[in-house]
Amino acid sequence: MIRIAVVNCNTTASMTETAAARARLVVGPDVEIVPVTPSWGVASAEGWYDSFLSAAAVLQTLEGLDGTVDGVVMAGFGEHGREGAREILSVPVIDITEAAAHFAMPLGRRYGVVTTVRRAVGQIEDSLTTAGLIDRCAAIIDTGLGVLELDDDPFATAEAFVAAGQRAIAAGAEVICLGCAGMAGLEEHVRDRLPVPVVDGVAAATAMVEALIRQGLTTSKIDSFAAPLPKRRSWPTFA
Amino acid sequence: MIRIAVVNCNTTASMTETAAARARLVVGPDVEIVPVTPSWGVASAEGWYDSFLSAAAVLQTLEGLDGTVDGVVMAGFGEHGREGAREILSVPVIDITEAAAHFAMPLGRRYGVVTTVRRAVGQIEDSLTTAGLIDRCAAIIDTGLGVLELDDDPFATAEAFVAAGQRAIAAGAEVICLGCAGMAGLEEHVRDRLPVPVVDGVAAATAMVEALIRQGLTTSKIDSFAAPLPKRRSWPTFA
Amino acid sequence: MIRIAVVNCNTTASMTETAAARARLVVGPDVEIVPVTPSWGVASAEGWYDSFLSAAAVLQTLEGLDGTVDGVVMAGFGEHGREGAREILSVPVIDITEAAAHFAMPLGRRYGVVTTVRRAVGQIEDSLTTAGLIDRCAAIIDTGLGVLELDDDPFATAEAFVAAGQRAIAAGAEVICLGCAGMAGLEEHVRDRLPVPVVDGVAAATAMVEALIRQGLTTSKIDSFAAPLPKRRSWPTFA
Amino acid sequence: MIRIAVVNCNTTASMTETAAARARLVVGPDVEIVPVTPSWGVASAEGWYDSFLSAAAVLQTLEGLDGTVDGVVMAGFGEHGREGAREILSVPVIDITEAAAHFAMPLGRRYGVVTTVRRAVGQIEDSLTTAGLIDRCAAIIDTGLGVLELDDDPFATAEAFVAAGQRAIAAGAEVICLGCAGMAGLEEHVRDRLPVPVVDGVAAATAMVEALIRQGLTTSKIDSFAAPLPKRRSWPTFA
Amino acid sequence: MIRIAVVNCNTTASMTETAAARARLVVGPDVEIVPVTPSWGVASAEGWYDSFLSAAAVLQTLEGLDGTVDGVVMAGFGEHGREGAREILSVPVIDITEAAAHFAMPLGRRYGVVTTVRRAVGQIEDSLTTAGLIDRCAAIIDTGLGVLELDDDPFATAEAFVAAGQRAIAAGAEVICLGCAGMAGLEEHVRDRLPVPVVDGVAAATAMVEALIRQGLTTSKIDSFAAPLPKRRSWPTFA
Amino acid sequence: MIRIAVVNCNTTASMTETAAARARLVVGPDVEIVPVTPSWGVASAEGWYDSFLSAAAVLQTLEGLDGTVDGVVMAGFGEHGREGAREILSVPVIDITEAAAHFAMPLGRRYGVVTTVRRAVGQIEDSLTTAGLIDRCAAIIDTGLGVLELDDDPFATAEAFVAAGQRAIAAGAEVICLGCAGMAGLEEHVRDRLPVPVVDGVAAATAMVEALIRQGLTTSKIDSFAAPLPKRRSWPTFA
Repeated sequence: MIRIAVVNCNTTASMTETAAARARLVVGPDVEIVPVTPSWGVASAEGWYDSFLSAAAVLQTLEGLDGTVDGVVMAGFGEHGREGAREILSVPVIDITEAAAHFAMPLGRRYGVVTTVRRAVGQIEDSLTTAGLIDRCAAIIDTGLGVLELDDDPFATAEAFVAAGQRAIAAGAEVICLGCAGMAGLEEHVRDRLPVPVVDGVAAATAMVEALIRQGLTTSKIDSFAAPLPKRRSWPTFA
Repeated sequence: MIRIAVVNCNTTASMTETAAARARLVVGPDVEIVPVTPSWGVASAEGWYDSFLSAAAVLQTLEGLDGTVDGVVMAGFGEHGREGAREILSVPVIDITEAAAHFAMPLGRRYGVVTTVRRAVGQIEDSLTTAGLIDRCAAIIDTGLGVLELDDDPFATAEAFVAAGQRAIAAGAEVICLGCAGMAGLEEHVRDRLPVPVVDGVAAATAMVEALIRQGLTTSKIDSFAAPLPKRRSWPTFA
Repeated sequence: MIRIAVVNCNTTASMTETAAARARLVVGPDVEIVPVTPSWGVASAEGWYDSFLSAAAVLQTLEGLDGTVDGVVMAGFGEHGREGAREILSVPVIDITEAAAHFAMPLGRRYGVVTTVRRAVGQIEDSLTTAGLIDRCAAIIDTGLGVLELDDDPFATAEAFVAAGQRAIAAGAEVICLGCAGMAGLEEHVRDRLPVPVVDGVAAATAMVEALIRQGLTTSKIDSFAAPLPKRRSWPTFA
Repeated sequence: MIRIAVVNCNTTASMTETAAARARLVVGPDVEIVPVTPSWGVASAEGWYDSFLSAAAVLQTLEGLDGTVDGVVMAGFGEHGREGAREILSVPVIDITEAAAHFAMPLGRRYGVVTTVRRAVGQIEDSLTTAGLIDRCAAIIDTGLGVLELDDDPFATAEAFVAAGQRAIAAGAEVICLGCAGMAGLEEHVRDRLPVPVVDGVAAATAMVEALIRQGLTTSKIDSFAAPLPKRRSWPTFA
Repeated sequence: MIRIAVVNCNTTASMTETAAARARLVVGPDVEIVPVTPSWGVASAEGWYDSFLSAAAVLQTLEGLDGTVDGVVMAGFGEHGREGAREILSVPVIDITEAAAHFAMPLGRRYGVVTTVRRAVGQIEDSLTTAGLIDRCAAIIDTGLGVLELDDDPFATAEAFVAAGQRAIAAGAEVICLGCAGMAGLEEHVRDRLPVPVVDGVAAATAMVEALIRQGLTTSKIDSFAAPLPKRRSWPTFA
Repeated sequence: MIRIAVVNCNTTASMTETAAARARLVVGPDVEIVPVTPSWGVASAEGWYDSFLSAAAVLQTLEGLDGTVDGVVMAGFGEHGREGAREILSVPVIDITEAAAHFAMPLGRRYGVVTTVRRAVGQIEDSLTTAGLIDRCAAIIDTGLGVLELDDDPFATAEAFVAAGQRAIAAGAEVICLGCAGMAGLEEHVRDRLPVPVVDGVAAATAMVEALIRQGLTTSKIDSFAAPLPKRRSWPTFA
């Protein structure tokens, strides 16, 4: 039995479950998906401040997982922490931001990303840039909605994602990456209305982790992602 | 039953078989690997001239496959034809050059490619560049051997790949992509001697095709890779 | 007497003649232009599939020319084969795609390319990128016409090229490259209506080949474009 | 009186003091330097894992500073958190990584960075890349020492920095940035032995913050770095 | 007493005075600003021709300054001469083009430049490119006014700068650099009407020079900017 | 009769003659080469300071040529002034720096430049960058000689160029551009000793100018290189 952790970047367990359910649809019968929700951090992550807070919470959470899973999916789109997870774990770690791009690139000449709020755009751009994947990104487009509006009306939100996708296509995208995770029903809605393939990052990342495990591949430990040295680290405890 | 074609770029059936055997190791039990060898072209492809000849042969071969397989692996490292295959087929097409990079990038900060002969280096660089994957490539290193030497002594050839890998690591690579296909035993040899993950393009491409099929994803048809128009094309017949 | 072959990428002899006629206008009195039309391939090339087919046909045709001409113009805009021709021939080879850019760049800060159909855009971008000439390309704009419409009404087609040129100028182009070959009368039409220099790739490539010949320069043979090794290659025969 | 906080990325107060002392040397007489040490996190930061932990600790610390200082120097070289600080604060925030590059670039054609350990190199590269400053970076070179060796012998450490600087110069650097903070005496040692200007990030960042304050300039709040929305964030309490 | 020269690129003394007055607002009480106007050259610089003429005039002027000032601000936005000044002087030299970008970059994700006339755009782009600062430049926008119109109506000119700033913001700029010098009142006008920080190049460059002087930093002399060799140079005399 | 001016960047008439003689070898029988030497400036140009001085002198000289020639070759390798000449003249202007690259690029995968002194390297890099031609430049290598040594012993100088060329080839160059002008006999010496094509910038630029003239092409005047406005410019007179 292969065990793959799907780790949410925020503390909202329902979003973890949505992501884990998506992951379960793409794996083989011998794979168990382990949903993981940090016990502290942010209810939802928008912006660098939230992202750095969530990165610390996720990394502390991942420390506890070492030795219990065969691979990790980091299910925060554009969120930080990816490289830290690669240092502390010996199993393969895939971030949904990069995975969506890896799967989108062979499907069309350029891809676009659609995401929730404006302030996520810069983070996603940085995440794709440092992963070496920005070259074929035609556009990263937000819905133009505020955080509160996103929660308010799932249908309006989904339609705003469709509109963002159409703008990305107009900018040259031939494939669309869903720049979020844990929004139930969004993927089907967007797929139905756009004339291009729509890639879900959780599905893509889970498939990549499974494939890496089956090929016996994991993070290189010679240099950047060598295991951290033991030292005095004062991990905070949630009060 | 899912059927994935593994299409060699040259006419040497034994290399097709080696690639197909590698592909079989990474797929689920419900996947059939279909080895395909072009009936004309080059016995082995080294350089652009060979590559363009092989691209035409492979594309003619792929035309005959349409409707009979669920996805295609193009098993020529650095060889041409990828985009043409995406036009004429409706199923997903993955080239081993890009697949190796897609799987290598999340495993380390930069990757390197080791390949057979000097004249392959430029082609591989172009292939990675047009796929948008060159940014994190630390080096593409050839064995320094001539074509005849490659065939002569498999052990010496494998050792030359190891030496090339060490040079790539010195240039910053933390992961190595095997820049060839169909050389039996090479992967194990190189893995045993290098301190970093070694990615095989056939395995990576096959896993990507399988994952795309399972996710219902295929080539975008809105623009670059729309089906070719019917027109007068005089495909040559092998004499 | 200097002999320069102008090699069409498709099988339509009238287009070869139009290109050859354009070439004759720019050469010295001691230069003979040799029109060459492949005997198989595509009636017109649109997209990668056509391009790879035409590349094989052109390369086979060029093999037969070796020793009979002093230089070669490859007259397919954005089509493949350039690097292969440099391997198999010892005389200089210039592709009209690159030549147009080489002549456009010193005439303005950025250049634009206007071409026939949408699917040519990506190919032209790749061709300029791998030639190292994309940096100063402001835009590659297609006419928006379908293949059939292009043949239908030469005046409407020429006007569509003018409109595409105006869009390229709006995107920053100060010079326009005609991204096609063999369309009689198009160059004059576009030049008359645009306020910027209009570069014809056939004229530019022919002038470059003539200049290289007169300077005693030809393809470097030390590495990328060394002559292919003798080996078993099964060139198909047109049936 | 202008108040500028110099915020260490780790919990070692002696390093904060060294940085604050350096800052005091460059400011006007009406500027007070406020040393700030996070109460939790890492004793020293090496690698992404440490960096993400320290970023969360620093950001929580900065939240408490809002309204009490006129500008902030983030004194961790290559460490994360910069963009988050810009979101939560209304006063200007300068990171020593970017500041060193900003001051080095006008002093020579290319600059180099010398840093402690190998695993810092990738982080520094990412930090300079996302700040838009990597283009003129000739090299980022580590001392080759382990973490323990760094603490052991200050003279040997300083000499290792000099050797790293010489390698950076050989790679094209005409100016050297000290890629660390809080190492007493290092700057003088390196300056004495290298034939090029040596830029200290703390000094550069403090000068930039002072200049921004005097010009009435602070972070743009229209988009990327708008203040975070109020929401449920569970900041951990150090146990 | 620190002496910083503010050197105009043109011969219009009133513009020198406006720039010097701006510089005086940002320096410490122990800093004297020395306004310098070339005795020959152009009344105003628009385009490369003017810029190269002014560069020669400015460099001849700077030769006479050596040993009399502690640093130099080159107050021509996008004008040439920067690197030559670094060769002939031993004190730090900062150009207002680069300084504006250095101060703008930490204030927002991308910056924009607003400038007078269309032909300045290319020069500014080249100046930022060769300084390694173009990566985060979202747009360089001109007012669309002719040279004569600029002089005609200061209010209309200032409003045209505001409109250019709004276009730059629409293109992604979160900070605006004023791409000119010596226009009295412009900075305040634009700051009042745009929702983002507005950086003045003269202020930024003067602050950088002052900071470099206080840190004992000056131009690297090992390579690119080593002092010119004595040789026969025939500097023209203004007739 | 076509008249092409070959304009030296320095005041040494013997170098102008060497360049003009080279130009005469490549043009048709109906082309007259007009050697032009500035009456003031530098005896030889090394570095930015010399280059800006020479640019002003050359531009003043070119003003006097307008209407008397059909095209201009600017025969200073890496020297400034190119864009200014395009503004003030209506005939085509080609700089030998760019021309060498334009002719080298189609002859091999990457080109290298060999030049006299170290301080020329940065200038040449900037010149190729702003011309959009740096992408395929493998290396710019200087001879390591001082200015005085260059004049001393032509044979030793030529051998130093050969050694620089070998280093460029080791760095990936498959074609070499001679990064200087007016050194009699150098081209033959280097060609004889290097295994790759050697491109002379004067020959390349002259051929490009001739070809542009024959095709009726000249500088675009819509934007960047529009004719300068009449205004007060105080051109100095050589005393």
